[in-house]
Amino acid sequence: MPDVGLLTPGADLAPGSPAAVTDDLAVLRAMLRAEAAWVRVVARHRGEDAVAGEIDAVVERLAGTDADALALATRVARASGAGGNPVIPLVAELRAAAGPRLVPTVHAGLTSQDVLDTALVLVLREAAHGIGADLDRAAAAVARLAVDHRGRPALGRTLAQAAVPTTLGARFAGWLQGLVAAQGFLAETAHTLPLAYGGAAGELSGVSDMADGDPVADCDPFALVEAWGDELGLPVGPGPWHVTRTPVVRLASALAETCAALGKVANDVLQAVRPGVGELREPVAPGRGASSAMAHKRNPVLSVLVRRSAIAAPHLAAQVLSAAGLAVDERSDGAWHAEWPALQQLARHTIASAHAAAELLEGLEVDAEAVARNLRDELPDVGRVPDVGAAAAVVDRVLDRLAEQPADAGRPSAVGEAPAEGGVGSEDG
Amino acid sequence: MPDVGLLTPGADLAPGSPAAVTDDLAVLRAMLRAEAAWVRVVARHRGEDAVAGEIDAVVERLAGTDADALALATRVARASGAGGNPVIPLVAELRAAAGPRLVPTVHAGLTSQDVLDTALVLVLREAAHGIGADLDRAAAAVARLAVDHRGRPALGRTLAQAAVPTTLGARFAGWLQGLVAAQGFLAETAHTLPLAYGGAAGELSGVSDMADGDPVADCDPFALVEAWGDELGLPVGPGPWHVTRTPVVRLASALAETCAALGKVANDVLQAVRPGVGELREPVAPGRGASSAMAHKRNPVLSVLVRRSAIAAPHLAAQVLSAAGLAVDERSDGAWHAEWPALQQLARHTIASAHAAAELLEGLEVDAEAVARNLRDELPDVGRVPDVGAAAAVVDRVLDRLAEQPADAGRPSAVGEAPAEGGVGSEDG
Amino acid sequence: MPDVGLLTPGADLAPGSPAAVTDDLAVLRAMLRAEAAWVRVVARHRGEDAVAGEIDAVVERLAGTDADALALATRVARASGAGGNPVIPLVAELRAAAGPRLVPTVHAGLTSQDVLDTALVLVLREAAHGIGADLDRAAAAVARLAVDHRGRPALGRTLAQAAVPTTLGARFAGWLQGLVAAQGFLAETAHTLPLAYGGAAGELSGVSDMADGDPVADCDPFALVEAWGDELGLPVGPGPWHVTRTPVVRLASALAETCAALGKVANDVLQAVRPGVGELREPVAPGRGASSAMAHKRNPVLSVLVRRSAIAAPHLAAQVLSAAGLAVDERSDGAWHAEWPALQQLARHTIASAHAAAELLEGLEVDAEAVARNLRDELPDVGRVPDVGAAAAVVDRVLDRLAEQPADAGRPSAVGEAPAEGGVGSEDG
Amino acid sequence: MPDVGLLTPGADLAPGSPAAVTDDLAVLRAMLRAEAAWVRVVARHRGEDAVAGEIDAVVERLAGTDADALALATRVARASGAGGNPVIPLVAELRAAAGPRLVPTVHAGLTSQDVLDTALVLVLREAAHGIGADLDRAAAAVARLAVDHRGRPALGRTLAQAAVPTTLGARFAGWLQGLVAAQGFLAETAHTLPLAYGGAAGELSGVSDMADGDPVADCDPFALVEAWGDELGLPVGPGPWHVTRTPVVRLASALAETCAALGKVANDVLQAVRPGVGELREPVAPGRGASSAMAHKRNPVLSVLVRRSAIAAPHLAAQVLSAAGLAVDERSDGAWHAEWPALQQLARHTIASAHAAAELLEGLEVDAEAVARNLRDELPDVGRVPDVGAAAAVVDRVLDRLAEQPADAGRPSAVGEAPAEGGVGSEDG
Repeated sequence: MPDVGLLTPGADLAPGSPAAVTDDLAVLRAMLRAEAAWVRVVARHRGEDAVAGEIDAVVERLAGTDADALALATRVARASGAGGNPVIPLVAELRAAAGPRLVPTVHAGLTSQDVLDTALVLVLREAAHGIGADLDRAAAAVARLAVDHRGRPALGRTLAQAAVPTTLGARFAGWLQGLVAAQGFLAETAHTLPLAYGGAAGELSGVSDMADGDPVADCDPFALVEAWGDELGLPVGPGPWHVTRTPVVRLASALAETCAALGKVANDVLQAVRPGVGELREPVAPGRGASSAMAHKRNPVLSVLVRRSAIAAPHLAAQVLSAAGLAVDERSDGAWHAEWPALQQLARHTIASAHAAAELLEGLEVDAEAVARNLRDELPDVGRVPDVGAAAAVVDRVLDRLAEQPADAGRPSAVGEAPAEGGVGSEDG
Repeated sequence: MPDVGLLTPGADLAPGSPAAVTDDLAVLRAMLRAEAAWVRVVARHRGEDAVAGEIDAVVERLAGTDADALALATRVARASGAGGNPVIPLVAELRAAAGPRLVPTVHAGLTSQDVLDTALVLVLREAAHGIGADLDRAAAAVARLAVDHRGRPALGRTLAQAAVPTTLGARFAGWLQGLVAAQGFLAETAHTLPLAYGGAAGELSGVSDMADGDPVADCDPFALVEAWGDELGLPVGPGPWHVTRTPVVRLASALAETCAALGKVANDVLQAVRPGVGELREPVAPGRGASSAMAHKRNPVLSVLVRRSAIAAPHLAAQVLSAAGLAVDERSDGAWHAEWPALQQLARHTIASAHAAAELLEGLEVDAEAVARNLRDELPDVGRVPDVGAAAAVVDRVLDRLAEQPADAGRPSAVGEAPAEGGVGSEDG
Repeated sequence: MPDVGLLTPGADLAPGSPAAVTDDLAVLRAMLRAEAAWVRVVARHRGEDAVAGEIDAVVERLAGTDADALALATRVARASGAGGNPVIPLVAELRAAAGPRLVPTVHAGLTSQDVLDTALVLVLREAAHGIGADLDRAAAAVARLAVDHRGRPALGRTLAQAAVPTTLGARFAGWLQGLVAAQGFLAETAHTLPLAYGGAAGELSGVSDMADGDPVADCDPFALVEAWGDELGLPVGPGPWHVTRTPVVRLASALAETCAALGKVANDVLQAVRPGVGELREPVAPGRGASSAMAHKRNPVLSVLVRRSAIAAPHLAAQVLSAAGLAVDERSDGAWHAEWPALQQLARHTIASAHAAAELLEGLEVDAEAVARNLRDELPDVGRVPDVGAAAAVVDRVLDRLAEQPADAGRPSAVGEAPAEGGVGSEDG
Repeated sequence: MPDVGLLTPGADLAPGSPAAVTDDLAVLRAMLRAEAAWVRVVARHRGEDAVAGEIDAVVERLAGTDADALALATRVARASGAGGNPVIPLVAELRAAAGPRLVPTVHAGLTSQDVLDTALVLVLREAAHGIGADLDRAAAAVARLAVDHRGRPALGRTLAQAAVPTTLGARFAGWLQGLVAAQGFLAETAHTLPLAYGGAAGELSGVSDMADGDPVADCDPFALVEAWGDELGLPVGPGPWHVTRTPVVRLASALAETCAALGKVANDVLQAVRPGVGELREPVAPGRGASSAMAHKRNPVLSVLVRRSAIAAPHLAAQVLSAAGLAVDERSDGAWHAEWPALQQLARHTIASAHAAAELLEGLEVDAEAVARNLRDELPDVGRVPDVGAAAAVVDRVLDRLAEQPADAGRPSAVGEAPAEGGVGSEDG
């Protein structure tokens, strides 16, 4: 019986919602997509173009509707214990559903790991795409906030104590640096996530045997592999990575760094909304922030969920790292299996975090009066117009430097445009 | 859309299977059970015994069938983002389904955390119960193996090299120590998992207000709380633990220790089944250990799954520890939320690991000839009948000492019985 | 060249200071102590009582002064890479320094792991003893605080927002629950930390060979092992634990749970000292809390250091768990080696955390006016004398229940005594 | 009292040895270097060029010899608890040692975190440099091994079982992919590790105040900061990163990925040297691999140490990630402090791992006969000359693709040269 996402609020698993891209049905569909693409490659290689077209109907029959897919996933999950992975029963289902002409092409020359790793790559790439879009929204909103409040004097706090005046914009510029760096790292890593291939022992002999029989003289096994990559839109790396886990390790690092960068934002918001502070407010939405016990409360639930994921993500990334460092032989005896739920859960957390952060930051409200009052109350000596020109200059510099980055390296849309004129305190700069 | 357990093979999520006790539907049902029990307590406290009986029908209507429960869970999951936890929408569903007489009793004086923590405790206790049963099977099997092979000379290996002769029984006795210790720790911890209560800020005022209105003079809020614990079969601890996370931290430690103890078993089996060693064999079952690429293979899939969980579990336990150390205020702003999926996933791993280990150990086959041959080949100087009396004495001592433990402290059934006569090499003792 | 503790402030590594019990010199001395005790046991077993007395002079010569010990440790550290552990070069040093009569008894029948594990156990037990004493101070101080403020109305905060009135005592009672539970778990675990023994492959043959030559008829290898344990004051467990890492896993869990329980205290203090709150103040000491940049600041440095360790500890405990789950064969090929610095660092963090917490809690100042003002400002509707009787009753119950624990299970000294009369708000109870 | 590295064998902390770059004395010296460089910048800015030259003598006086440095470090460590970091007492020492002309320039406008973060960056960059050199040695050796054995048939093993024939070169090519990727990531990350600056609250006002007083019209605070970076050879990032921990998070990811890539190598060697396999041998060196209990053993200690670090590193990286995700305000209240020992220990592990791996791989011996025999014994059907052309082609492709990388992106020296002619099995290609 299924998990439905009860325990990861904000990672709404409804079809079409962001986190659904990493759930078990998404993994199942990605496996089917990988297997089907391979069938087409093999069939075409064998000159059986007509056969190539049949596989889509088979997949449609098996998992065309959500109900069918759920039923298939349930059967596969139950049967996966016997071989230790879901590909073995899935291939059995595919072969049973395929006609006799298709059967010899299904999974021919592949190993389970080729298919599951490729499916996870497809799922993670799509997850990273959605996260990137939310990070872009979030970073654009922060850039606007940094411009708008570049010179607004605010109480700087260090080690939980009042320190010296800074500007609200300088705090936002710090957020922006973290978001843009994570966005760039994640985009670059996701972009290079490669196809998994190699067959039984990463030695490619199964594919090679097919290629050897090829009537076309210059066909080699890598040509088939490249064709598979083309079908799926995935690059083919230098070699198989069954036990060289760089791709998923790097992605896990990027996802965890993203959660950490967003965590800083959430921690600051959670301090700013506390009783006695009140400098920021989360955007209001019907029903959001309700309490089951206290009708008067409006909990900062977006920040809470972002902070939650910042607490969880390091452990999930470490699980992927541990597994990578325990890889052995041509395919591992447990380390590979330890990666899957960590990657899935880490992606789910990052999706939820980025999505909540985008919503949070696009609607974040500044209580200018509270900002001014807290500074005045805590540092009465600084006077009514503290000199915060240096802090404002920090904002300018951060925005300038980030604007120098090429747009495709993760620069948010709002960075690099002309800074808004007349931001608060711009006269202080 | 649901996860169906694709990515945790061996943790078959079919209803009735071991791991189903921790899936989202189990959590949902445990929340309903906790809420319903509280309704009965409140209604009886108010002298409305007739009302008390109505809540079961409401729950049955909402989640009586798997399909209903799945639909409810899906609605709740989708709505849980708004408040950051699933209790808020669940209570709304309950109130909507309850008649006007019941509504004032539903969730009266409780807070979300009372219900979700209690539900997790119910689920984790049941998980621990199943794990304990599997550990008992596993430990009994290991105890038998230790007796049977107490004096069987075998190659001792250290730092991946041939070392000196030991006995197979001594290795098994080492396994047994780890299993029995984990079993005892887990049983003790699970047994004391307490009810969660305290209301809005752990100050019990909501419950107290109800108790204050009680016509029965000596009623106090703790009486209601104790009644709730009685309904659910849960002890009531010294005080609320909303932000004193000892119970779940301790349980996470016990689960992770269990996975580690089982990991040692799996690591040894995986070395023993390798090419060139062949001292042990996993039990054979139809379809088990199949490969999607190589028909000749019989993969040691039970050990692989156990090892997988030993790699994963430390990170999940650490996630629970991190959350506990970040608890703050009367209820936390993210740390609490970071616990749930870690606890669920950790329990799932431990269930799968213990279940696979029980199966593995009850059917583990020893290839006595390979054991003898490897010793002879690697340490030819030790002769045909090496003196392994000390190693055999280690086995005896371990079994004797473990037998001294009271049975309810996790002592496996086979330990403490008369040792089998005529175990191999018993003449060496 | 040495680490001197620069990067773990508060874990002052001066001789005699709390954390010095876990530094490298302490480990070195514990190894020497273990080796010397074994020499005495072996020599006495061989009827060479005169020889038994000589080993102390050898150890004194090698490491009698701090300078000698540092020089020895440095030589050993440099030479430890060759064999992968420090025992091998240490034994060479011991043999070179011992006279010919002693040499045959040095390390006879032992393996490196017997000595290093035993040394770590000695060090960790002493660390746990010191931590326990600081936890006792901390818990006693918290118990007093809970009594003194049992009925003092205070603002309850949940999810970073004002919630409902509670009492300051109820918050303190929550701290107390966590501290007492950790204290009991740690004491119990440390108390049972066993001697490590077993020889080359945990098969005890080396010791057995010596015992076999014993003129005294009934001597067995376990008698020698027990004598070693008696020399060191360590219990002897059921069997060797070279690859059954329960003892260090359990201790790591107890240390990490301690850091988490203390973390809750620190998090609350750090919120309470923030600008705009001001309900608590850390005790003042000359120079403490100074800033290198801002003369006016008094940083809450005790809480900062406690929180630091709560952030670090889960990862160090997980490192120990990972190593345990990767144990293999009769002695591991890397997993054992991964434990040492984690255990040392985890103990150091816990020592520093408990020590800072004891200091913090014994001198914690409550600003009663700020407590009252914040409640009034945030929840103006509750009036001047909010009804917090239920919260005060929670305090009473927690204190009562903890007082029921036997004193040797970690009950702090202050718990179980008659509650102070006239605690604030006692009239509310 | 100091740690001397007893518990991290292979990370020999002797001056000049690789790991000494990360020990406490190295951190101390880096702090002094950072402070001195800043004094020069400030003095020159103030037109006091003569004063600028005096600071070096002060530093020399304080820590010119190892003994002085150790004494200073010990004083600083003991005093660091009061303020929570070592910079505060270090600055006091510097000011006490500086003449009156220098005092106003010491630490002027800086905060502790500027100095400690910059010192850690200096130390970590140098560590990364040494690791990079060892990775280059390791990768070059692996590239040669891959070429030499590109077509040597070998038993492929998957899930701990015999699978199909592959080539030894294909396994080595897998190692190479992981090493080269880690090397490139680490080099890129270390290269961009930035100067830390920002002053009290990251708002640069302290520096700005000095710049404002500058007689030279166009001086701005960033000019001073850039001059500081020039002095230390460190780039200046977009803005302060006191609470935007991208630089250290990214570096931790790169170090952990390195340990994981090296871990794969070690795991394979440890399997290959086991009894019954014997396909590889670690290089022999006097005293290496000795056992304290068994004279006949030659333990694979290089691989053991590498595997150790692969087990430890994920947890240390996660500690850095956790701290980053808990950053708050303008400077954190504990999260920053949790980073330091993790970074230091993670660097130490990676240094030790890369150093051992370089030694291991440059001298790794292949037992060609054992390789052939194991393949024949396990897969007798494949015949004397198995077709492993596809596996050899994988080697060629990996080498070709890696050779396409620019040399400064981490390409090892041996990759990109003409492949050795006549490698075993080259006729199969």
